[in-house]
Amino acid sequence: MPDFDCNVPSVTLVGAGPGDPDLITLKGMRALQQARVVLYDALVSPELLGFAKADCKKVFVGKRRGKKEFSQEEINQLLVFYATRYGHVVRLKGGDPFVFGRGHEEVEYVHRRGIAVEIVPGISSALAAPAAAGIPVTKRGTNESFWVVTGTLASGEISADLELAAQSSATIIVLMGMANLKEIASLVSHYRSPQEPVAIIQYATCPAERIVRGDTATIEAQVEAGKISSPAVIVIGKVVDESHLVDYVKVSVEHRR
Amino acid sequence: MPDFDCNVPSVTLVGAGPGDPDLITLKGMRALQQARVVLYDALVSPELLGFAKADCKKVFVGKRRGKKEFSQEEINQLLVFYATRYGHVVRLKGGDPFVFGRGHEEVEYVHRRGIAVEIVPGISSALAAPAAAGIPVTKRGTNESFWVVTGTLASGEISADLELAAQSSATIIVLMGMANLKEIASLVSHYRSPQEPVAIIQYATCPAERIVRGDTATIEAQVEAGKISSPAVIVIGKVVDESHLVDYVKVSVEHRR
Repeated sequence: MPDFDCNVPSVTLVGAGPGDPDLITLKGMRALQQARVVLYDALVSPELLGFAKADCKKVFVGKRRGKKEFSQEEINQLLVFYATRYGHVVRLKGGDPFVFGRGHEEVEYVHRRGIAVEIVPGISSALAAPAAAGIPVTKRGTNESFWVVTGTLASGEISADLELAAQSSATIIVLMGMANLKEIASLVSHYRSPQEPVAIIQYATCPAERIVRGDTATIEAQVEAGKISSPAVIVIGKVVDESHLVDYVKVSVEHRR
Repeated sequence: MPDFDCNVPSVTLVGAGPGDPDLITLKGMRALQQARVVLYDALVSPELLGFAKADCKKVFVGKRRGKKEFSQEEINQLLVFYATRYGHVVRLKGGDPFVFGRGHEEVEYVHRRGIAVEIVPGISSALAAPAAAGIPVTKRGTNESFWVVTGTLASGEISADLELAAQSSATIIVLMGMANLKEIASLVSHYRSPQEPVAIIQYATCPAERIVRGDTATIEAQVEAGKISSPAVIVIGKVVDESHLVDYVKVSVEHRR
């Protein structure tokens, strides 16, 4: 077990996992137990904060009602401030800190100011969301790869990578793509077919989990009927058809206990 | 906490994570604590078996010196046999059960025989290996996606998906690709450049972890000089250049404690 000297300035970036608090790693839990301060995001389960000591400061730095409390630059500054002032700081981020999480910017900023940094990986919702829907991201004989892509660039447009992904055998996993769902479905329909299977998973591994399935032609209507909203994970590819077992298979979801 | 009735036939597929035993999830650890039988692979840390009760049967079903002890069909049969005979069986697989792990075939087989199945995701080495090298798989302004692809098809050839991946902004993560490293490097060099950064990580997050860095022109020589062998994870893309912090950043690795 790692021993953090709680009084020496240090920052541990911990991936909280996809939602279910039991999907954090042992190493992440131990870092929380030894934190003087925790800076946490909106997508993090409140139960995880329970691992921290009673006198550990818990600082919310996420979005509330779609509005950022702090800019990335301010979060970086807070990490350095709290580490210098109190010692061991845990930066608790939803999913994995190195997957679309700007975790590396935080590592770089903190390191440049001479503070020790450690990274504890977490389970990315890019992989846990399909698993929660019973969908293997790869299946022998069906596909040879999976491609995880952001659905919305800073410009609001979809990534040019999606056009290449659509031409491949890859299972395509789109994060932050709900605003561009129509365009994404139409692109995939063009290169694959209107019957290319699509699943959308919201609140994966959480009690509120919702899953809809369809194909590129029907998925928009399914989303409307299923009242799925953002954020949600879009999974595209033949492997989606493997999810027929999901009604029988207990995938790791809290509320199914 | 989930309660398994240890005497009722059931199978839980548990992702053991990339190597460091502390990178298993709480849920995975609890499943092990409540197992009557554990069927485990070669890539699984022996320390994880310590979570199981003393009277839990531990059955090795992986490869020894490159040779399979059992075929996939035989492993499927053993899962059903042990669950029926003893109750709760944990199938402990390296990384994540749904990433190139044939986990879905096991789920399907067991489910068809009327035995309850649960899946507990694990941290895939596809993501943990770059993290261990200090490489963020995505970085704002650098790339918009990452692509995880198998480097060797059943035919021994490289996947056609790699040719599309090489044309994208994606960080390319190749699993099981060391035998085709020359061909992969040459393909990426053609579409990107001979200076496209490449890192190779063996035994990620384990005490024996080894990392080499180079570019598509130099990586083969680096691999030889660094005495890196298979299995190892190949990471290709501009984000590899971000790993300059790795000598300073304590990434989650046991032996650095």
